[in-house]
Amino acid sequence: MAKDVHPPRGMRDFLPADHLKRTQVLNGIRATYMAHGFQEIETPALEDLARLTSGQGGDNEKLAFRVMKRGAELEAALAGSESEDNLADLGLRYDLTVPLTRYYATNRSKLPKVFKSIQAGPVWRAERPQKGRYRQFVQCDIDIIGDSSILAEIDLLVSSLDALERIGLSAATIRVNHRVLLTNLLEQLGVPEAGRGSAMITIDKLDKIAAEGVVAELAEKFDASVAERAAAWLYAISENLPVPSELAPIFEAIEARFGSSRLRFDPTLVRGMGYYTGTIFEIEHPESGSSIGGGGRYDGMVGRWTGEDVPAVGISIGFERAVELVSDQQVQSAASNLVLVLDSTAPTVVGNALKHQSALFEQGYSVRLEQRPKKLNQLLENLALHGFTHFAIVTEDSSDIGALTIKPISN
Amino acid sequence: MAKDVHPPRGMRDFLPADHLKRTQVLNGIRATYMAHGFQEIETPALEDLARLTSGQGGDNEKLAFRVMKRGAELEAALAGSESEDNLADLGLRYDLTVPLTRYYATNRSKLPKVFKSIQAGPVWRAERPQKGRYRQFVQCDIDIIGDSSILAEIDLLVSSLDALERIGLSAATIRVNHRVLLTNLLEQLGVPEAGRGSAMITIDKLDKIAAEGVVAELAEKFDASVAERAAAWLYAISENLPVPSELAPIFEAIEARFGSSRLRFDPTLVRGMGYYTGTIFEIEHPESGSSIGGGGRYDGMVGRWTGEDVPAVGISIGFERAVELVSDQQVQSAASNLVLVLDSTAPTVVGNALKHQSALFEQGYSVRLEQRPKKLNQLLENLALHGFTHFAIVTEDSSDIGALTIKPISN
Repeated sequence: MAKDVHPPRGMRDFLPADHLKRTQVLNGIRATYMAHGFQEIETPALEDLARLTSGQGGDNEKLAFRVMKRGAELEAALAGSESEDNLADLGLRYDLTVPLTRYYATNRSKLPKVFKSIQAGPVWRAERPQKGRYRQFVQCDIDIIGDSSILAEIDLLVSSLDALERIGLSAATIRVNHRVLLTNLLEQLGVPEAGRGSAMITIDKLDKIAAEGVVAELAEKFDASVAERAAAWLYAISENLPVPSELAPIFEAIEARFGSSRLRFDPTLVRGMGYYTGTIFEIEHPESGSSIGGGGRYDGMVGRWTGEDVPAVGISIGFERAVELVSDQQVQSAASNLVLVLDSTAPTVVGNALKHQSALFEQGYSVRLEQRPKKLNQLLENLALHGFTHFAIVTEDSSDIGALTIKPISN
Repeated sequence: MAKDVHPPRGMRDFLPADHLKRTQVLNGIRATYMAHGFQEIETPALEDLARLTSGQGGDNEKLAFRVMKRGAELEAALAGSESEDNLADLGLRYDLTVPLTRYYATNRSKLPKVFKSIQAGPVWRAERPQKGRYRQFVQCDIDIIGDSSILAEIDLLVSSLDALERIGLSAATIRVNHRVLLTNLLEQLGVPEAGRGSAMITIDKLDKIAAEGVVAELAEKFDASVAERAAAWLYAISENLPVPSELAPIFEAIEARFGSSRLRFDPTLVRGMGYYTGTIFEIEHPESGSSIGGGGRYDGMVGRWTGEDVPAVGISIGFERAVELVSDQQVQSAASNLVLVLDSTAPTVVGNALKHQSALFEQGYSVRLEQRPKKLNQLLENLALHGFTHFAIVTEDSSDIGALTIKPISN
């Protein structure tokens, strides 16, 4: 009996055509970042659980898949206590930023003084699976560690916009804000210092609960005067706010490079992560309802491992959302995919086929070998669905290259 | 204070130069397999633990990293019993073959009738780490599912030898045997049917314990007459044994394609995995003390999930061992890696730099932006170590492309 077999919940198999598209899109992003002088690195999928849950990963820490201890250590943990915290020692990374900061601390003596990294790979989160949200998904990050100047922000944004253009998403724009502006704002609204984190969480919900919701929640969390000032602020926000001086060099540079501004100053942009200390970004695309990436400056985070302050800023393309926006037509297939049909498996026929295959490689063909089945048309029709465009029959007699007749598969 | 930070035991960070080499080698293998008409797929890193430990993975099953249940399910498991088996529901894949057979069962209606797959990705094993053995490492497999003819074996071996040649390992050879020949042999030696698996395990140790050790162990496991016949057989084995008829078409085809034989018949080759049913292969290279890959036919395995018999055969390149054999000189660096040094971060300078960067991309340069530090030479010397070969200074005045002087970094 056939069993009902699926990949684990929220995780995906990729068919050849999907895999090809994903690879080409990811390689397009990678190549652009490399052209901008970034260098790709790789960290293990697993990190020590203690590091993954040390407070840098925000809400994502709760979503880490935890890997059980093994052997004697597991036995000791099971014997000693039933506490679940003690049973696991490793975790699957839930983002690429926490591993990057650990990587930098481990390897900084071997890296350029200003380190410009590319990371592209899967991350895992034990979230409730839903449409468009997966438990294993790919992120593609660039980060600049060791540069506190705004040139780092400009470099990240120019590189990201170039990468998105390369994969056909030239309509992408980026919203920009600065955590210091947010802090100043909250002060003006009369939010007490201890309540700033909580107030930011409320403002971050603007997209979901609208201005009314934000005002109501602030009234609940603080007092009527905070809510009143927040309302006045929110209703005064217009599309074309003047860019604050903290962000002006970024806007000027992007304008200089891309002609028109691809950036928008958004004073309500918060970004969830607690570790941001300066600029914050969110990438948008008119055809996507949600953001397709984001990032910001996180100057305090690397110092957690190295013991010395190291400035850092990064931006991440949400690969799953980006790749959905790329049309399948943009995927390039190989020049010509050809099927060599062997008339029999007699040694001469196999020998002829291998000789032809080798010669056809030189002509740029990709060449699949197949035994002639009873119904040749059925085979060719099936392979046409999978991207094969041409075929040729190999017999005992077709030892010369000239003896091979290449025909298109008609369908 | 700096903390002592490392990746988890037995797992590795990759520096940019290492990552570049690994990517180029893996992409070389991939491109060759694609030219041979194989199609790349991808499965999740995690599989249901019950599937990973259902008896198909041999000894590797014990090495699976197990992922703890979450939420209410974990609480129930902890409350119900302390049995470790009940606490985990997922596992990290320890090879690419078990996931492939599951993938085929899940997706076979959307795949070509004969499916020729490429898989390249990390696997995880909770082994005791030692030199050259890691807990996360990359495998690169090709498999043909749905073809019971020997053309499948020929296709795999030709493709593998081509792939190895592509990455500079044209000295690789492949040892070949057939499980049916082994079974016949054991019968002739007088090994009872129930003892065949155990006898194969002993013969598999020939490399480590030599003929004397094998004979002694067989005497212990069975009786003196088995050991005596085994000794006669082992000492009669010579370098150039005649190829048995079961394997002759493979040898003829490889000879026809590669001129000289890259194969060797080895009647003592066993390969550990219990699931092999026919041909078995092991890839060797004169510069490597251990095998750099292997595979075989496993006709019974896919049927475990689909409920119907499906023939299958695969071969795996042990990527970690192969990449060690590839010389670093073979890694191609980008045409020219250039550093644009900005004289200041004034908007005009940034604007000029971005304009030059964009123009230099067109000329095939990869272009990294840097602020001019106090000691320019130090910066350039450092970046020269990381592959940068040229630099140019951007000032307020260098807005014309002609105003840019590109110089080699001397070191």
